[in-house]
Amino acid sequence: MAEQDSGGGHGAEAGTRAEAVAEDTVMRDLLRLPVGERISLSSYDTSASSGDATDPRNKTDGREAVARMARPLADLQERLWAAGTAGDRRRVLLVLQGMDTSGKGGTVKHVVGLFNPVGCRVRPFGAPTREELEHDFLRRVEKRLPHHGELGIFDRSHYEDVLIGRVRALAPREEIESRYGRINAFEQSLADDGVTLVKCFLHLSYEEQRRRLLRRLADPRKHWKFSPADIDERALWPAYQEAYETVFERCATDAAPWYLIPADRKWYRNWAISRLLLEHLKSMDPRYPRPDFDVEECRARLQAQG
Amino acid sequence: MAEQDSGGGHGAEAGTRAEAVAEDTVMRDLLRLPVGERISLSSYDTSASSGDATDPRNKTDGREAVARMARPLADLQERLWAAGTAGDRRRVLLVLQGMDTSGKGGTVKHVVGLFNPVGCRVRPFGAPTREELEHDFLRRVEKRLPHHGELGIFDRSHYEDVLIGRVRALAPREEIESRYGRINAFEQSLADDGVTLVKCFLHLSYEEQRRRLLRRLADPRKHWKFSPADIDERALWPAYQEAYETVFERCATDAAPWYLIPADRKWYRNWAISRLLLEHLKSMDPRYPRPDFDVEECRARLQAQG
Repeated sequence: MAEQDSGGGHGAEAGTRAEAVAEDTVMRDLLRLPVGERISLSSYDTSASSGDATDPRNKTDGREAVARMARPLADLQERLWAAGTAGDRRRVLLVLQGMDTSGKGGTVKHVVGLFNPVGCRVRPFGAPTREELEHDFLRRVEKRLPHHGELGIFDRSHYEDVLIGRVRALAPREEIESRYGRINAFEQSLADDGVTLVKCFLHLSYEEQRRRLLRRLADPRKHWKFSPADIDERALWPAYQEAYETVFERCATDAAPWYLIPADRKWYRNWAISRLLLEHLKSMDPRYPRPDFDVEECRARLQAQG
Repeated sequence: MAEQDSGGGHGAEAGTRAEAVAEDTVMRDLLRLPVGERISLSSYDTSASSGDATDPRNKTDGREAVARMARPLADLQERLWAAGTAGDRRRVLLVLQGMDTSGKGGTVKHVVGLFNPVGCRVRPFGAPTREELEHDFLRRVEKRLPHHGELGIFDRSHYEDVLIGRVRALAPREEIESRYGRINAFEQSLADDGVTLVKCFLHLSYEEQRRRLLRRLADPRKHWKFSPADIDERALWPAYQEAYETVFERCATDAAPWYLIPADRKWYRNWAISRLLLEHLKSMDPRYPRPDFDVEECRARLQAQG
């Protein structure tokens, strides 16, 4: 993980800005998967750290580091939102993918929970409805995109159509094969339209998944999260890992990179994703809009009103 | 929370329960406006406390009290959400109304921010679009209701159609007059369908509004929240207060009461609304669903899988 360096640095901006931006791409550089390469997931440690000096060392460190990010994250989100009210079309789309129990829901709770809910659009993707199945697989995604100034969060996404879709052969092979390219074209069009895509794969070990499923079974307050179907899916683990590797080979692009998040340790996962979002928001550098009214005149009118 | 006998036992209703529920209606009883009565808003103090012994005394107290509610609120929300996955149709709809700067946005940030974002559906209501104007005024509201298990939040609402709608005569008088009854019928149908309505009026003083508007003008990071139109609306303050009084007289019902929140002090507003939500969620008493699968069999299958 440490020597990952993948993907190459998002070219140098000019002047003093370049340095600030460089500092703000540490995790992006370390966690980003290479573009157009076949990787082997088994060679990535599910409980690794990124290896960067800023990495928290333990749960306490990690939680404190996340808490320290809450304020800057919320401030940047407010600026993004404010800019959105004045014509800035930019927004962020966080895509969360991973096996059952890998922590997609936990990320929403602990990381997305740091933001102002008014600007967050959380969209879980379950099995498509009969009506959705009648349309192109990207149609239901288009309807749930974040609006300008928002942080959109997909808990699962259009990638399910080349994951469970592939593993369970839910569509003809040629149809599945055609989807990778269509996803890339779709994501490129989003990027061109001001969407910053942050696609995170929560990389969990087979053994840790078992522990988490057993923990769900042991706790009546967690039974509702469990389904016997989870065991059937788990039986297909190698096929899913292979389907993910194919996704990373074909759909990690410069416009929409994939990030691999070691997910066996929840606090590390929360920290890494918070950092990733912080780095992206910082380099987007959203600005409060200038007033389109005369501030002094308004002040005078207000004071005259009594 | 510990003795909650989570998930399983749906028993132990009567007796001890009655007391707990009584304790949990303190703020509901103190802040609820009377049904079917004309009140005079000027007789309600905008910086009052409810007078209950549990009231926080100052900002520090208030913030700590809100922080202490975070956990029980999130726990109850999770139970509501879990129940929703198993057929429980109940949900909560928090309606926020109040003059500009009264703190609707601040409530979303500081109170709704305590909940898991996955179960929150924040819906701001701006001026209706041309398309929305072609339909009944309740149509756009119906589309934005919370789903089962969710906490819905309306930042402004259908009440705007009898507030600015009345003050600015945006529709014929008879149309406006007819809306109060239609709102009551609509809210009754929501209540019958499992929606717990918590309608909060953030009661701000004229003087405090001026201070807040001036503060927005003084801070470039807040200019985007300001519009010169706010000054025009402020000039109509007495007409708005009268329109609110009419709302409370006609639309405070047993099925959907109105709560008056003294809003000059932000920390008190946050505390009071958090308490109100806590009381409502506690008396809804949502339960984790029982598993519809054989826990022991699933455990055995998982362990056999290795």
